[in-house]
Amino acid sequence: MNLRSIYLSFIFLFGILQSTAQDTISIANFGLKPNTRENAVPFVNKAMDALKNGQNKVLIFPKGRYDFWPHHCIEKEYFESNTYDINPKRLAFLLEGMTNVTLDGYGSEFIFHDRMQPVTVDNSTNISLKNFSVDWDIPLTAQGEVVSSDNEGFTIRINTHESPYIIENDQLVFVGEGWKSAMHEIMEFQPDTRFVEPYTGDEQALGYGWQNYKAKEIEPGVVKIYREGGFTRHPKVGNLLVLRHSTRDHAGMFLVHSKDIAIEGVRIYHTAGLGVLSQYSENISLKDVKVVPNKAKGRFLSGHDDGFHFMGCKGQITVENCEWTGLMDDPINVHGTCVRITEILAPNKIKCRFMHDMSAGMVWGHAGERVGFIENKSMRTVGYGVIETFEILNKEEFVVELSTPIPEEIKAGAALENLSWTPDVEIRDSKFGSCRARGLLISTPGKVVVENNSFESSGSAILIAGDANYWYESGAVRDVTIRNNTFEYPCMSSMYQFCEAIISILPEIPEPQSEYPFHRNITIENNTFYPFDYPILYAKSVDGLKFMNNTLIRSTAIKPFHKRKAGITLDACKNVTIKDNVTEGEVLGKKVEFLNMKKKEIKLPSREYFEF
Amino acid sequence: MNLRSIYLSFIFLFGILQSTAQDTISIANFGLKPNTRENAVPFVNKAMDALKNGQNKVLIFPKGRYDFWPHHCIEKEYFESNTYDINPKRLAFLLEGMTNVTLDGYGSEFIFHDRMQPVTVDNSTNISLKNFSVDWDIPLTAQGEVVSSDNEGFTIRINTHESPYIIENDQLVFVGEGWKSAMHEIMEFQPDTRFVEPYTGDEQALGYGWQNYKAKEIEPGVVKIYREGGFTRHPKVGNLLVLRHSTRDHAGMFLVHSKDIAIEGVRIYHTAGLGVLSQYSENISLKDVKVVPNKAKGRFLSGHDDGFHFMGCKGQITVENCEWTGLMDDPINVHGTCVRITEILAPNKIKCRFMHDMSAGMVWGHAGERVGFIENKSMRTVGYGVIETFEILNKEEFVVELSTPIPEEIKAGAALENLSWTPDVEIRDSKFGSCRARGLLISTPGKVVVENNSFESSGSAILIAGDANYWYESGAVRDVTIRNNTFEYPCMSSMYQFCEAIISILPEIPEPQSEYPFHRNITIENNTFYPFDYPILYAKSVDGLKFMNNTLIRSTAIKPFHKRKAGITLDACKNVTIKDNVTEGEVLGKKVEFLNMKKKEIKLPSREYFEF
Repeated sequence: MNLRSIYLSFIFLFGILQSTAQDTISIANFGLKPNTRENAVPFVNKAMDALKNGQNKVLIFPKGRYDFWPHHCIEKEYFESNTYDINPKRLAFLLEGMTNVTLDGYGSEFIFHDRMQPVTVDNSTNISLKNFSVDWDIPLTAQGEVVSSDNEGFTIRINTHESPYIIENDQLVFVGEGWKSAMHEIMEFQPDTRFVEPYTGDEQALGYGWQNYKAKEIEPGVVKIYREGGFTRHPKVGNLLVLRHSTRDHAGMFLVHSKDIAIEGVRIYHTAGLGVLSQYSENISLKDVKVVPNKAKGRFLSGHDDGFHFMGCKGQITVENCEWTGLMDDPINVHGTCVRITEILAPNKIKCRFMHDMSAGMVWGHAGERVGFIENKSMRTVGYGVIETFEILNKEEFVVELSTPIPEEIKAGAALENLSWTPDVEIRDSKFGSCRARGLLISTPGKVVVENNSFESSGSAILIAGDANYWYESGAVRDVTIRNNTFEYPCMSSMYQFCEAIISILPEIPEPQSEYPFHRNITIENNTFYPFDYPILYAKSVDGLKFMNNTLIRSTAIKPFHKRKAGITLDACKNVTIKDNVTEGEVLGKKVEFLNMKKKEIKLPSREYFEF
Repeated sequence: MNLRSIYLSFIFLFGILQSTAQDTISIANFGLKPNTRENAVPFVNKAMDALKNGQNKVLIFPKGRYDFWPHHCIEKEYFESNTYDINPKRLAFLLEGMTNVTLDGYGSEFIFHDRMQPVTVDNSTNISLKNFSVDWDIPLTAQGEVVSSDNEGFTIRINTHESPYIIENDQLVFVGEGWKSAMHEIMEFQPDTRFVEPYTGDEQALGYGWQNYKAKEIEPGVVKIYREGGFTRHPKVGNLLVLRHSTRDHAGMFLVHSKDIAIEGVRIYHTAGLGVLSQYSENISLKDVKVVPNKAKGRFLSGHDDGFHFMGCKGQITVENCEWTGLMDDPINVHGTCVRITEILAPNKIKCRFMHDMSAGMVWGHAGERVGFIENKSMRTVGYGVIETFEILNKEEFVVELSTPIPEEIKAGAALENLSWTPDVEIRDSKFGSCRARGLLISTPGKVVVENNSFESSGSAILIAGDANYWYESGAVRDVTIRNNTFEYPCMSSMYQFCEAIISILPEIPEPQSEYPFHRNITIENNTFYPFDYPILYAKSVDGLKFMNNTLIRSTAIKPFHKRKAGITLDACKNVTIKDNVTEGEVLGKKVEFLNMKKKEIKLPSREYFEF
């Protein structure tokens, strides 16, 4: 190396160091030290101002514990999909109007208190969030261990540090930092497998009508739950109960009107609403993000609701090497929000209304965006249009003016879908652990690849729904590939809404028209299923469905229970191929049932395991 | 009753109802319900605005539990006497610029979280605060029970709900809502009597130099405190330790620049600083106000520091039917704050400085107020003056211009006392329970009557100090009567600063001049003492001291320990009368000792129990 190259190397190195020094700032520079239990919020607010003003681009947290209380939180009104309109939201980290910013926790624990939204990314571009965990000292969901059972009821042990409670009017009421909340649901988990106890699910931990129970404190932290004559079902001694209370009032991480967001190396041990909610945002990548219980604290519950929830997003959504366990709702849900047309104001002007109270207040559309008109009885998209103007009337209603007249078939009561905000989705190498409800819910016309994942879902592993009559979570699919996944035996071991099989394709169509299927092009191939029960696939209103090259290995871990006795059930489908599937053991669901369609729509080679 | 009187009665009744309806408003009208754990602060802020705007004059709280968190607290900078300058203070109830307002809790529990000042009355007149209790779920002082002891140390059980802790660097650190705080002092209480363990007091629970202890968690909530070779003294198994941590950063109730304040029916179960601090205020009445541990919660600690603290007040202070137990400092302290003259700027102009860091920032004087010039070596007031102008330079310093030249003897280093802010004081029918340090500290030239009280103080029951060289708590007394009180055996059973006898009159005078005694006219009569030890009265630099008609009944509850072996010690006093005192049992302190004075200054009849 000559002098010149040494000189150049020096200049190069100096450049790197200088750039790092200028770009990166530590939260310590704002006066906050880890492990002090001091409220981090005012320091984070200052750091966010510095990032916003472009003084620095990388904010780091020296590894340690940081605590966040509502005091000093910026408060903002946000309308968050699938979240109740409890406003203002209290914001711990608000990244608003930022570009090219990285937040790196260096493995720090962020501990939250009371009700607040840990991370909010609003109108920002190219944001990287990495290497931290999110947890609560006193979570907004409780748990207890079943220690005994008798013919009146059962007794649970509650960690009163994490779930302080009182008995009020003979019932169990949890009390925390700024809130008091009565238990309203129970979910039951096995301590060793961490699976939802089979055949329980919604209501079935105690049986229907258990809510008139009585609670009695036996000693501090030990509470008997009972009623005269006992309950339909008593949870097993040794099992862990998630004692659900409170409401979904904010997300763990809320990404809105933002673009190019990467989240990596993040553990969300608890959230009070949806774990990561992406709404009207573009290009989102989640890698090594786990929404799981904090095992070190003995917890079986993680988030209060869904894991990753994508509503009205576009561009590319990538989920890689992620995991969800102990959630009180589905790990992933990708959908849009369709609205009801309530009034035809002019040939090209309509009044619309959000039909679900958790949608109200969102900015649904913008000029230039493409919409689909859905006739709500048949769920047929009968025409398309482009938004000319978009005017918000109030939280529930808005007026859309279109560049062309609306289709003739469309009357008040029909639905409108925004087709400009529909993403392509890749979900791979991830573990859908046991949670309340289902595994993956997906409704987008974009290209969807679901591969190399493992499912231990309690209900259906995958649900492809679509409706414009109840939840208004829009989105017929056009191109879905589900390959190389493993569906473990717990899949479909408890009942929840829309769970017709391990993979359940169930659009809600009041009056289906078999010539116009709702969904299109769904391929399920090269997967391994471990069914203990009959129903493997249920598909309604699909044009172009392939189920092939899958391996089915009978599990005898638990006994079958589902009302369906066919392995594959098809309803009003077209162009179905079932072939080259292989089995091991006495797989139960050999039969293919079909209704509301012609047999010729199903290609089923004679050498195939499945048969009519 | 004729029609006219019925009519008049009706009009009268209607008037009452109308007046009540107009004057009284409930916190419920602002949307807050009791027992919800919801943060009461934003609702209280709205109620305070309504009171301030004169819409209502009486604010009531339907009986129940109300919780207060720092979120939404008004924050203000306050310089509070004998409190550290940690600002801004977070204020739960701020009554500012109000007149004729009543706040009635109807027996409600006000539960606070994190560090905040529960009640602040600023620039207000005719305010009544009544019928509520103040407590913390997680107090800012901890406690534990001694469960075992060995030759290395001892083991304590801590209620981890109320005093969550971690072990950090082998020492005990308490963690709470927004703070983390290392243990720095220990006080030891007996479980049955709730007295401070005799012969302990400051440092003596473990002996000097115990701070290099190690802590080890045996099981959750059980911690061993030890060091090689053990400590000088080990606390008794079964005793309760107050594990002191954190600092005095705000008062429980802070009354400042206000007039005619009545507090009644209030329980202060915990505060982080002084319980009720009255500062530069006039006419304060406290009736049935108790600063005591919450026995229902098994607590032995109450406030972090003094109970009632009056600094620079005037008019009448009345304390009736009150109680203090388990405080970590004196139940009552009445004093002014004298300042050091640092520079003679002109014959009638001086620069002054607050000499104690807990005094800084106070508004010390106003034009027209009378001051005394104290020569700091002799503590003689060598002249008087009237403030012409008062100018604040910074938190520590101010300039006073006087209407006349200052006395010739006064040089830089002398002290200045504000004589316009000195109250008359009546303290009666109250119980001075066992607390760290002394019972009543009093330094005011006003008329003082202390009668019908019971004292169980750990150190001196009454201390009349006065100094201008260290604490700068000014105030020579002129007229003090102490009568019909009972001094129980625990009085003077542990050592603390300035504790020379059960009643200790101890001005700090570097170079006393016996011809100019500092205090005047102190009468101690018709009291009952239960001394177990020698020293009953210590008096320094008093002109006109009477100790008469007292009953002394020997207590044998514990053994004597004080270095003083005289019952009465007189130092540089004049006009002393000791007579008509009677005894029961072998009272030890028969001897009267005197120094720096002539024997003829003491009238001691030969039939008197006491003798030279």
